[in-house]
Amino acid sequence: LKEAAVAVRSRDLRLILTDVDGVLTDGTLWFSADGAESKGFHARDGLAAKLAMAAGLELGMISGRSSDVVSRRARELGIEIVLQGIKDKKARVEQLLAERGLAWTNVAYIGDDVVDTACMNAAALSAAPADAPLDIRAQAFMITDAAGGHGAFREFVEAILRARGDWERVIAPYGATAL
Amino acid sequence: LKEAAVAVRSRDLRLILTDVDGVLTDGTLWFSADGAESKGFHARDGLAAKLAMAAGLELGMISGRSSDVVSRRARELGIEIVLQGIKDKKARVEQLLAERGLAWTNVAYIGDDVVDTACMNAAALSAAPADAPLDIRAQAFMITDAAGGHGAFREFVEAILRARGDWERVIAPYGATAL
Amino acid sequence: LKEAAVAVRSRDLRLILTDVDGVLTDGTLWFSADGAESKGFHARDGLAAKLAMAAGLELGMISGRSSDVVSRRARELGIEIVLQGIKDKKARVEQLLAERGLAWTNVAYIGDDVVDTACMNAAALSAAPADAPLDIRAQAFMITDAAGGHGAFREFVEAILRARGDWERVIAPYGATAL
Amino acid sequence: LKEAAVAVRSRDLRLILTDVDGVLTDGTLWFSADGAESKGFHARDGLAAKLAMAAGLELGMISGRSSDVVSRRARELGIEIVLQGIKDKKARVEQLLAERGLAWTNVAYIGDDVVDTACMNAAALSAAPADAPLDIRAQAFMITDAAGGHGAFREFVEAILRARGDWERVIAPYGATAL
Repeated sequence: LKEAAVAVRSRDLRLILTDVDGVLTDGTLWFSADGAESKGFHARDGLAAKLAMAAGLELGMISGRSSDVVSRRARELGIEIVLQGIKDKKARVEQLLAERGLAWTNVAYIGDDVVDTACMNAAALSAAPADAPLDIRAQAFMITDAAGGHGAFREFVEAILRARGDWERVIAPYGATAL
Repeated sequence: LKEAAVAVRSRDLRLILTDVDGVLTDGTLWFSADGAESKGFHARDGLAAKLAMAAGLELGMISGRSSDVVSRRARELGIEIVLQGIKDKKARVEQLLAERGLAWTNVAYIGDDVVDTACMNAAALSAAPADAPLDIRAQAFMITDAAGGHGAFREFVEAILRARGDWERVIAPYGATAL
Repeated sequence: LKEAAVAVRSRDLRLILTDVDGVLTDGTLWFSADGAESKGFHARDGLAAKLAMAAGLELGMISGRSSDVVSRRARELGIEIVLQGIKDKKARVEQLLAERGLAWTNVAYIGDDVVDTACMNAAALSAAPADAPLDIRAQAFMITDAAGGHGAFREFVEAILRARGDWERVIAPYGATAL
Repeated sequence: LKEAAVAVRSRDLRLILTDVDGVLTDGTLWFSADGAESKGFHARDGLAAKLAMAAGLELGMISGRSSDVVSRRARELGIEIVLQGIKDKKARVEQLLAERGLAWTNVAYIGDDVVDTACMNAAALSAAPADAPLDIRAQAFMITDAAGGHGAFREFVEAILRARGDWERVIAPYGATAL
């Protein structure tokens, strides 16, 4: 039943948007005494990003904070939409959609905090990581088994690509078969 | 029942004090060979700090250790009360309260070790993270579902702001609605 | 029963191959603002590597990504087979096997993502860490209790060495006895 | 019953020895591309070390690996016995005991791998962290609820100090009372 619902909501997707801290990372902001700031991204999320793009979906990152590390990770993955320092995420996404002639029915969104719920409620499909606060999980269509920074994004992508029937095709170049 | 008790204890709060290592972080002190020391703070705790200040509460950090990284994180969040290298935390907090004309009935305190229990027992409301030692959790009014460094502080702040009826108002600027 | 099956599949092993990110690490790629990239390897996996080599097995790392940190860790452990930046892992392993006159019946393989399943299905014995995606775990002969980066590799090695009757002998120099 | 047994075994303790990687840390060895190596130690273990010393017990670290970071952490805590790069730990500890006129009945030992079991079996009291391999846990007198690097050492120390009747006295300077 859930899978059927994901399939209906995934049909018209064109764009997967993800929050950064707490979704692509476990939420930890690392500060070192010499002023460097670090973040940890998961390898499986990186591969999932490539699979989603191979399936013809566009990806974007949207964050309330700003960090060079995020730009660097996006560059590495070939993600061009990187919106940082955004307070009102829903307004910013609507501007993006207008520029590209897209609608919320074309958008899947994964987030973990109050700054994300407006987008989660507007998007065709939404998810929150397993360790998101209760109130946020309650507003998400899917809750991933994985916590933020531990493959939550990959789980969301896999669910979408399977629902759209794209999964087997995009993993085939790796010699993989799907169960 | 618990919520009603939190509400009574939250009514007169003016100040939320938090220990650092083990509450705002998971307790890990990172040492690198080149002498740098790092700590990891959680993004959701940072947003919670801003929400608490938006609700008119003052925040403070109090630590038995000393680290530039803590000062830097406090500065980033706009937290002015940063007490480091404190052995007798209760005495130091009482000095602070005297300076500001406040009493323990105005204080909420979250901590994770024996150095915190005196403050926890004196404060109007107290909490310990899910992974605090048994003896510490036993002396806390609330035990958060989240472990230290994984959103324990945010959970404490959300419980307080909800009990005071401030939550919906402070998350509204982010386009968020509360359940 | 499972142990008997592991024993049969371990009899002809000559080579243990392991993926890196998500198996030897928890999958997290650490990016710092100054451009440094870090990975975390587990001490118990390092000791297991030495025990496997003491039992006469050769070890190899194979990764879809490339990082100096991996080469450094391999050097520290005395592992000479380090294959990085490999997209089609199965083809690359078959080239390696041809060079050495080995066959898949001589290979044990542990991996955590779609890029690993072709090797997992070809190898005599395969494993996936506890936190690998469901689809990957379903294609592994063994699922370790430990997650990636937390001793999954060591568990795989211990199971193999016990099944081959080598465990007691290789831990003896440490004054250890096996239960 | 368990507590009574710990009490009997703790009566003559003079020295608490701890392995480093996997006990004082979560076992992760952090390698950065620029060659720096880092470890993470837990703040609560640090306080526990101070409490143990305040109770008149001596502390020592013993590791199969070698790292400046370990020396630095030991110095910060005032721990003078730091034995690194030790392959046969039991022989090395017996040399230490001979130098100081102590016996294994004076020693408590916490470790997490095959290199530690000889010491664990010889010591008056032994422990392994919750996430140690099954075979190691099976040879420990106590298994801590906490995993390595998350307060396992502190739990071991607290159990010893409580069994010896020292706990209340050593936490009193922090204004703390024990339950």
